[in-house]
Amino acid sequence: MSDEEKISELKEKLKNKRLNEEDEDYKDDEITADEIAEDIKELKTKEEIHDYLEEVHDVDIAEYLEDIIDENEEILRVLSAVDNEEKAAIIEEADEELQVKILDLISEEEALEIFSYMSPDDIVDILGNLDFPKRKSLLSKMKRSDANKLRELLGYAPETAGGIMTTQYIAFKGDIKLKAILEKIKLMAPKTEYIETIFVQNEKGEVIGEADLRDILIMPEDTVLYDITDENIKYVYPEDDQEEVAQLVSKYGLKVVPVLSRKKVLLGIITIDDVVDVIQEENTEDILKLAGTSDDEDLETSLFDSIKKRLPWLMINLFTAFLASFTVGLFSSTINKVVALAAAMPIVSGMGGNAGTQSLAVTIRSIALGEYENNENLSISIKYVLVGLINGLILGIVCGFIVYFMFGLKYLSLVILLSMIGNCIIACLVGYLIPVVLKILNIDPAMASAVLLTTVTDVCGFFLFLGLATMFLDKLI
Amino acid sequence: MSDEEKISELKEKLKNKRLNEEDEDYKDDEITADEIAEDIKELKTKEEIHDYLEEVHDVDIAEYLEDIIDENEEILRVLSAVDNEEKAAIIEEADEELQVKILDLISEEEALEIFSYMSPDDIVDILGNLDFPKRKSLLSKMKRSDANKLRELLGYAPETAGGIMTTQYIAFKGDIKLKAILEKIKLMAPKTEYIETIFVQNEKGEVIGEADLRDILIMPEDTVLYDITDENIKYVYPEDDQEEVAQLVSKYGLKVVPVLSRKKVLLGIITIDDVVDVIQEENTEDILKLAGTSDDEDLETSLFDSIKKRLPWLMINLFTAFLASFTVGLFSSTINKVVALAAAMPIVSGMGGNAGTQSLAVTIRSIALGEYENNENLSISIKYVLVGLINGLILGIVCGFIVYFMFGLKYLSLVILLSMIGNCIIACLVGYLIPVVLKILNIDPAMASAVLLTTVTDVCGFFLFLGLATMFLDKLI
Repeated sequence: MSDEEKISELKEKLKNKRLNEEDEDYKDDEITADEIAEDIKELKTKEEIHDYLEEVHDVDIAEYLEDIIDENEEILRVLSAVDNEEKAAIIEEADEELQVKILDLISEEEALEIFSYMSPDDIVDILGNLDFPKRKSLLSKMKRSDANKLRELLGYAPETAGGIMTTQYIAFKGDIKLKAILEKIKLMAPKTEYIETIFVQNEKGEVIGEADLRDILIMPEDTVLYDITDENIKYVYPEDDQEEVAQLVSKYGLKVVPVLSRKKVLLGIITIDDVVDVIQEENTEDILKLAGTSDDEDLETSLFDSIKKRLPWLMINLFTAFLASFTVGLFSSTINKVVALAAAMPIVSGMGGNAGTQSLAVTIRSIALGEYENNENLSISIKYVLVGLINGLILGIVCGFIVYFMFGLKYLSLVILLSMIGNCIIACLVGYLIPVVLKILNIDPAMASAVLLTTVTDVCGFFLFLGLATMFLDKLI
Repeated sequence: MSDEEKISELKEKLKNKRLNEEDEDYKDDEITADEIAEDIKELKTKEEIHDYLEEVHDVDIAEYLEDIIDENEEILRVLSAVDNEEKAAIIEEADEELQVKILDLISEEEALEIFSYMSPDDIVDILGNLDFPKRKSLLSKMKRSDANKLRELLGYAPETAGGIMTTQYIAFKGDIKLKAILEKIKLMAPKTEYIETIFVQNEKGEVIGEADLRDILIMPEDTVLYDITDENIKYVYPEDDQEEVAQLVSKYGLKVVPVLSRKKVLLGIITIDDVVDVIQEENTEDILKLAGTSDDEDLETSLFDSIKKRLPWLMINLFTAFLASFTVGLFSSTINKVVALAAAMPIVSGMGGNAGTQSLAVTIRSIALGEYENNENLSISIKYVLVGLINGLILGIVCGFIVYFMFGLKYLSLVILLSMIGNCIIACLVGYLIPVVLKILNIDPAMASAVLLTTVTDVCGFFLFLGLATMFLDKLI
């Protein structure tokens, strides 16, 4: 059987297997890493693998290689079957671990050849993941001008606008005619990442606006670039946080943002597809930090790493849990006299935690979306005190009735009602204030917010409930 | 003083005010809704307002109008100063409430004129927000073919691919030459939302691939479209959930996704800037649902609405809190004998909640990013049992020592150790299983996950701790 026959047989098999699957939502380009693993096992020669991988998306190939990260020979067998342009595409899609592994497996000369198919921002990302000697050695083997450009980009912190921008953009002086621009774009397009927006500079080289490729196509050839320039543009500075860039792009529906120096010189551009990655990354960070685990854990994280990422947070939690425990300990003689208190006390602390988490989540999300304005702190604080008061009142009344029917102690119901109102007010307010204060202190608002909040609501809940119970002790016995 | 003088004076004032601000990060196009309000107050004539608003981004104008949502006359005064194209842009950026308000304030004839500047997907979004009689009346006044297209789009659920797609795309048969395409694109571009990707159809009208505008510009004029067609494309069906679309776009770094029928006919396209909105929306939903509040609350939500959105969730929480309370109540005679138990028990339940929330967040995030694969449930479950075992063991030992120094009861330390291990195992496993089971049942995995989890960890924590304490009761007294 020839190679081609084998390939086509394999493809046919794959197709049939899929047609037999009951899932009618199946799209014929979908393939999982496991399916690639299964298919590739049966392929022997480079040519077979090459032909097979042509049909598979780079993202999926990278995902497959991430799954077999420890099988050096298999990774090399797959990589040696594709050309350097395809290798570049796969490495760009790979996670940090796989990027480092591949750069370890191949020679520096091969790495440099592969880099020639990548844009500077992608090379910088990869170099940033390598250890210092390796990075230095690669840079020293490059053309001096390329190396200098990369060193400049490496100088920006990875999570800033400078760290995610690319230097492949198109910019012209405003007095050039559209006909000339179109000629130049045709020459520049193959090695430029983004051609849909052209930046417009004045005589001093300052950016004064941008023009759409669309308008350049539509308008008469002898129009001057100035005449189709939109001067009302949004931009960022290189040291701006990537989260601010994401907020700007999503608020104003931008497709590209220029990164300018203070003197309005164009340093680079950030395209919307890179911003999508930033948004996903920042959202993952927020939700995981809020839950008290490290921001880079996922379901594939190894057992040992999961433990290592989670344990420090739990240790912090443990010590704050003792604060709650101490608070309860203060009132042990009261509990000794009325044991029903032990059963009722988790309700007040738990409900405070829930009510506070609501404020916390709304606030963290508003900050993340750039909707928070610091001139409204007082009015929002007052609102949340009232939200806590009214919700606490309603919950306290319901809870008081149930407790009355359970224990028959009407003063216990009063204690529950009052402590529920108090704890809900504190919870709603503190759930708002914690992230706001963290933001003002320039700390990530999601960081440790939940731990701080539950410590406050537990301690306050137990203290209010058991303290009030101690005050009314003679009515409860 | 002439209008122009007044305007330029105002602009100068604004500029100076800003230059005096110490914030060196200030970008000269930034303006807040409050500043617009202040500036506009001083402007009298339509012309003044018109000139002023030309310098302000539609998004910021919409934000300003959202802030003065109850001032009908002021909204009309601002709107009447801008032309219909600008009105269209402002309405597109407005939130639901403002869209409905503006459509109420203007005549149906004016609305139809404004619609002529909008793309069908934006009109559909607005119509979807209106009440039925108003929507019907507007549709009946449109050109029949336009109305039919809109009715078709209105037929798709708003959170599906069909609900967010636009029908303004460019598609050609594959045998056309690039020169002809370029001519046609020039004609179509002004009324087409996205021109950077051209879809390629075969004789039967099925989509067989896509081509880049870049390649069309670069390649020789007499190249046939087929020759620059990429056949390996990603697509979605109209009833696919918008979250799946977002996953596809972010996984494969797409800039546009075609929406195809089962027969591969092009129904519409979804562009990446709309996907950014979807991602933000879905992330807000996840984080707020996880925290147990409605998915559309933000810091601007009114007092009454905040209470209304939060109270139902807290009521559910209250009843689950009673489950924990009942569990404690089962052991009141044990607590009565060893009151130290009351102080120590919140530690075990609380730490279980924290450990479980870590698994929960990692799982929900992985599902949201489309990284969850249902063939790994067993191996991940085993991993999380081990994570719970080891973290519980370490926490239990630390906690046991502290409790021993606090109360001097070595069997109390043993009880804490064992119940901590047990509750951490349950928490880690259940934190993973709850969202997975919800996903299998086709319920949003973030929905009510946290409430379910804390109920489990509270009940199990109290039961394990107090149950073991009861077993060892004679050693504890």
